[in-house]
Amino acid sequence: MTQVLVERLAVIGCGLMGGSFALGLRQRGLVGHVRGYSSRDSTRQKAVALGVIDEACESVAQTVTGADLVLLAVPVQATELTLSALAPHLGTHTLLMDVGSTKCDVIEAARHTLGLALPRFVPAHPIAGKEVAGVEHADAQLYQRRQVYLTPMAETDPSLTARAQVLWQSLGSKVNLLGAEFHDQAFAAVSHLPHLLAFGFMNGLSAQEGGAELVAMGGPGFRDFSRIAASDPTVWRDILLANRLQVLAQLQHTQTALAELEQTMRDGNGLRLHELIEASRLARSGWRLLGDTE
Amino acid sequence: MTQVLVERLAVIGCGLMGGSFALGLRQRGLVGHVRGYSSRDSTRQKAVALGVIDEACESVAQTVTGADLVLLAVPVQATELTLSALAPHLGTHTLLMDVGSTKCDVIEAARHTLGLALPRFVPAHPIAGKEVAGVEHADAQLYQRRQVYLTPMAETDPSLTARAQVLWQSLGSKVNLLGAEFHDQAFAAVSHLPHLLAFGFMNGLSAQEGGAELVAMGGPGFRDFSRIAASDPTVWRDILLANRLQVLAQLQHTQTALAELEQTMRDGNGLRLHELIEASRLARSGWRLLGDTE
Repeated sequence: MTQVLVERLAVIGCGLMGGSFALGLRQRGLVGHVRGYSSRDSTRQKAVALGVIDEACESVAQTVTGADLVLLAVPVQATELTLSALAPHLGTHTLLMDVGSTKCDVIEAARHTLGLALPRFVPAHPIAGKEVAGVEHADAQLYQRRQVYLTPMAETDPSLTARAQVLWQSLGSKVNLLGAEFHDQAFAAVSHLPHLLAFGFMNGLSAQEGGAELVAMGGPGFRDFSRIAASDPTVWRDILLANRLQVLAQLQHTQTALAELEQTMRDGNGLRLHELIEASRLARSGWRLLGDTE
Repeated sequence: MTQVLVERLAVIGCGLMGGSFALGLRQRGLVGHVRGYSSRDSTRQKAVALGVIDEACESVAQTVTGADLVLLAVPVQATELTLSALAPHLGTHTLLMDVGSTKCDVIEAARHTLGLALPRFVPAHPIAGKEVAGVEHADAQLYQRRQVYLTPMAETDPSLTARAQVLWQSLGSKVNLLGAEFHDQAFAAVSHLPHLLAFGFMNGLSAQEGGAELVAMGGPGFRDFSRIAASDPTVWRDILLANRLQVLAQLQHTQTALAELEQTMRDGNGLRLHELIEASRLARSGWRLLGDTE
């Protein structure tokens, strides 16, 4: 018989991420009772109807009280307010996790709000999602074979970090421990900046005269390069603002490299242009997706 | 019985592109005799051994003489010299095509070299390729279900354009007629510029301190966005230089759009940032790959 890992789970924000976490634990028989809170009553009712949670609560305080695990999965903008609301009601052994894409800003909000409960917070960033949002798309397998980054603070209780690790692994995730600072720098470099560049490319392309005719000519290279230009505006506005210093610093690196490519083209310097493209080719061709065995 | 479309084919440059064209016609029984030329003797011998050509020639003049179709598939840098060498030997009804990725530069070279044979040139750009080069990878199906752009000049004999169309269609390609100027602008916008941006992104990322550790953190978004950063340096040096005015003009559009995104992030203007990302999302989400039926 499977051992229950969580007696009482509280999910604050019953959307795709929070709902999938609850469903994943439930379908594996790893959780006792699940309470959920969402600001909209219709979402709460849907979560109960879909079997994602056992019980819908009408306040954050009520949801959290008595829980041994609290998962915070609200939109980024609601993070600090929600932390304030739940802090006084966290049990003394309760593990608190979030699922945000940036970590320094969440940690700062936690320092402002959690007080003595700060050591019980294990910041988490699961690399998972779907093109669609909402609890109706919650999926017990969403986190399976996905990377999850945990960025414990100096104050975090190490036994709770270990517990968080076991929980994500029980959902099939591959867990990595990182410093929050490095996490945000790395995601600025390999995720947030590419999105910004794709938005700029797409807007520059389509805003020009006859832009729609040009877009129509795109081939397979265009398809892959610009795929992320169609990302969700609310999610990406929040990420770009939350991590803007790191993203702008990374943009400078691209701008410096682009300026050299541009000058080399203007000079017609084929030898140097070949070297610059070869450097790019070498840096990219050795790369493999983490966790890919091919 | 299939009707032969080409009595005598001359392939100048027996690489992946030229070899696949010859093989495609041969395997469909659409060609009588195939002569081939490559500057290296070993390539010529390989092309014969692989059944890509019937007969290896030791000069461009010899290859072209008596051919009713000449396909020029040499590296971009050799285009003008090769056109000079073949011009005096083209028959009065011979169709001449190339397979280059940029068209205005090839047309300029043709105007300098072809003289009275100019009307027999139909500039062509098949959108096909593989990660690997060389006649040993020649593939009779390479052009099947691929787009082929023909950019006939004002001087081009319309009956030869029509013949070129039939030939590519016989290989399964989808043929489009375009002006060379628009072709080069469009490919600058949706292919050459994305490559340049991907090279700049990759070089900026990997040149910084700890760059290799950052690259290692890439996920699925990084994978797709940066795939073209690993492209062949010789091919892309030639394309970026041949089409540099159009590429640099397109880069300016991206830079203008990026400057607005950057300023909006610095200002912390979430409302405007949402609008800019939404514009990108709208422009990209309606796009479909030409010829894709999904």
